[in-house]
Amino acid sequence: MEETNDPKLRSWIEVSPDSDFPMQNLPYGVFRRPGGLPAVGVAVGDWVVDLARLHEARIFADLPQVGNENCFARAQLNDFMALGKRAWEAARTRVSELLRSNNSTLRNNEALRRKAMVRRADVEMMLPAACGDYIDFYSSRHHASNVGIMFRGPASALQPNWVHLPVAYHGCTSSLGVSGRDVRRPNGQLPPAAAGGLPGFGPTCELDFELEVGFFVGTGNDDGRPISTAEAADAIFGFVLVNDWSARDIQRWEYQPLGPFLGKSFATSISPWVVPLAALEPFRVPGPVQDPPVLPYLRYRGDWAFDLNLEAWLTPQGTGDAVRICRSNLRLLYWNALQQLAHATVNGARRRPGDLLASGTVSGPTRDSMGCMLEITRNGADPLELPGGIRRAFLQDGDSITLRGWCQGPGYRVGFGECTARVLPAA
Amino acid sequence: MEETNDPKLRSWIEVSPDSDFPMQNLPYGVFRRPGGLPAVGVAVGDWVVDLARLHEARIFADLPQVGNENCFARAQLNDFMALGKRAWEAARTRVSELLRSNNSTLRNNEALRRKAMVRRADVEMMLPAACGDYIDFYSSRHHASNVGIMFRGPASALQPNWVHLPVAYHGCTSSLGVSGRDVRRPNGQLPPAAAGGLPGFGPTCELDFELEVGFFVGTGNDDGRPISTAEAADAIFGFVLVNDWSARDIQRWEYQPLGPFLGKSFATSISPWVVPLAALEPFRVPGPVQDPPVLPYLRYRGDWAFDLNLEAWLTPQGTGDAVRICRSNLRLLYWNALQQLAHATVNGARRRPGDLLASGTVSGPTRDSMGCMLEITRNGADPLELPGGIRRAFLQDGDSITLRGWCQGPGYRVGFGECTARVLPAA
Repeated sequence: MEETNDPKLRSWIEVSPDSDFPMQNLPYGVFRRPGGLPAVGVAVGDWVVDLARLHEARIFADLPQVGNENCFARAQLNDFMALGKRAWEAARTRVSELLRSNNSTLRNNEALRRKAMVRRADVEMMLPAACGDYIDFYSSRHHASNVGIMFRGPASALQPNWVHLPVAYHGCTSSLGVSGRDVRRPNGQLPPAAAGGLPGFGPTCELDFELEVGFFVGTGNDDGRPISTAEAADAIFGFVLVNDWSARDIQRWEYQPLGPFLGKSFATSISPWVVPLAALEPFRVPGPVQDPPVLPYLRYRGDWAFDLNLEAWLTPQGTGDAVRICRSNLRLLYWNALQQLAHATVNGARRRPGDLLASGTVSGPTRDSMGCMLEITRNGADPLELPGGIRRAFLQDGDSITLRGWCQGPGYRVGFGECTARVLPAA
Repeated sequence: MEETNDPKLRSWIEVSPDSDFPMQNLPYGVFRRPGGLPAVGVAVGDWVVDLARLHEARIFADLPQVGNENCFARAQLNDFMALGKRAWEAARTRVSELLRSNNSTLRNNEALRRKAMVRRADVEMMLPAACGDYIDFYSSRHHASNVGIMFRGPASALQPNWVHLPVAYHGCTSSLGVSGRDVRRPNGQLPPAAAGGLPGFGPTCELDFELEVGFFVGTGNDDGRPISTAEAADAIFGFVLVNDWSARDIQRWEYQPLGPFLGKSFATSISPWVVPLAALEPFRVPGPVQDPPVLPYLRYRGDWAFDLNLEAWLTPQGTGDAVRICRSNLRLLYWNALQQLAHATVNGARRRPGDLLASGTVSGPTRDSMGCMLEITRNGADPLELPGGIRRAFLQDGDSITLRGWCQGPGYRVGFGECTARVLPAA
């Protein structure tokens, strides 16, 4: 690991080498000061740069599109997203310039600095975008195989379609909440004890998390023209961590034949800072070989997996001690983001700015790389043994799950911050 | 049939007895005059009453909530929906009063009449609500059985969960469009010719409609507290016709295990006028007996099926002649709207004003009461024979489908207008 010496990446703001938010990252989020209005900001080190205030100060005035209406004085990123890639690049470059050691515009303007810089610890984060459609994929081969075995047995674990298309379903957009929001254990119908019996009803006994990464669509296709894999890279705004909370017993009973519904729709947690695709470019790596070959509309050029380290941490109720229960990596994903977006529009479906497309659980081949309790504990048969004699088949009330993700560069990391949530007892 | 003599229902606007929009109906929609801004209106006979203009004229000024901000000067009904049932009742009563024969407020105010009354033929209708989540149920037993046989064979046609819960999935909200919008035949992956073979790709060969009825949630549960069946009636704003366009070959190949995705997400048509629950009250009838008995959270009091006649008409390409291909009735639905809404929130999921919950195809027991081509033609095996020697296994380019629905009262009908759309060739 070497530290970068690129002067463009040295800032007058101190950023610790293990910060998730160095100059190389500059993720976007929507935040609120106590009692204040929501606004779009960028995270750097321990600070948030308030882009709405910078816009008022005419910092973006000379930029096409971005300089017009104040698209940062908003409670969501959608208006900025809709401006498209050139505008994102221009804004990112301008913010990066402002924060450079050799740039005095903001550094030496104390009045503006006071208005536009706020400590991350002092703000509340909100959902970064108004999401019109939330689509959840199922793009990890290890995950699909493991879950398939438990839901349907080894013979039909991986359905015949799986290697030909990125399987997906529409999730519940109202379930989306930002890291820090508690998750209440859902009630629902539970599978009959024996085939042909009557279902039960009550709080789920099989509450689970799912370690995922999602991306926000920036530029949609309002015309209903499919977005090709070649066009997809320009349409993707940025990435977040996603915890697709799941109630396995509810899901197992309800999901035939139309897919998951109440087993998923009670909560989905996302990390608040949207890491731009531009910040992830240095971490593009080859993905898994796709065999059989994919249909032409799913072919793509270049490397489109990301070397993005992923972790899940469990803090059992009553302890303050987070235990890492999963280490995975997004590069394991079989279907990449370009393919997902091309697939999701190939029928002419419209994607709009703010749509969220999530990866599905990102599992690896070993037990310590499995991204949900269902897989880790083999549907509860083999509970996790945690320090202090604590055992977990599934999650208990008071448990917290924290997801982390980062790309490791030489002397810096492009991180996602945390996606964390605590389980509340059923109502 | 007797004509009503209730003077409250006589209007100074002439309404033909076979109009879908008599005084008993007064449905809400969002419309736009040529070059004008969108506004909320009410349909009566051949007219639209512009509620935004009435609001400006202080017609609602004395009503709690409704009288405050102009919630009708909007491009969607959501703000009005969010005011809740008392506000809907107050507004409905006020509009009804204004239109009565014995009320001169609007009738004798020519300036206001010119501003606030516009012919339906002269306006463009828009989506009535911004829909956060669109949920499609599968609540017709005949439909679920028929489709199950064709997708999975008779042994597992009706899954074990079907009689215990109203099966549903989340649909694509960007697919929603209002009657009159054309539907482009989608491309997609097509099932392999033989098991284990490679999928094809191209325009769907099995384009289908689905005859459904949906309701808009008016009052949501932002707190995540379930909406009970007892509370559900107050939360439902009104009903529309829904055509859930489907590509059966795409759907059959993709839907395992997570449900329909691209086979549905290309288009969903709805009728533009939202018929208030209040207008449907006189047509509440007992629904099918539910056996086995349902779980307590799905029990309800009173009659909650609706005697709502439904029809589907096909206009084959190149002819101007619409042929009725289905007559059904919403009273056949096994799971009712109260149960659907209670189920969709029992896990604490949030429903928001403007969410759309659709019935699923409303099929009856006979061939002429089946609500989609898949059932009518037994997956194409038994094509429809239409006048002029025209045959249809599924829909062809240039074909139009028109859905109609109405409740027949003595001398009047509470109708839904049309939900119509034409098939364009694949891109």
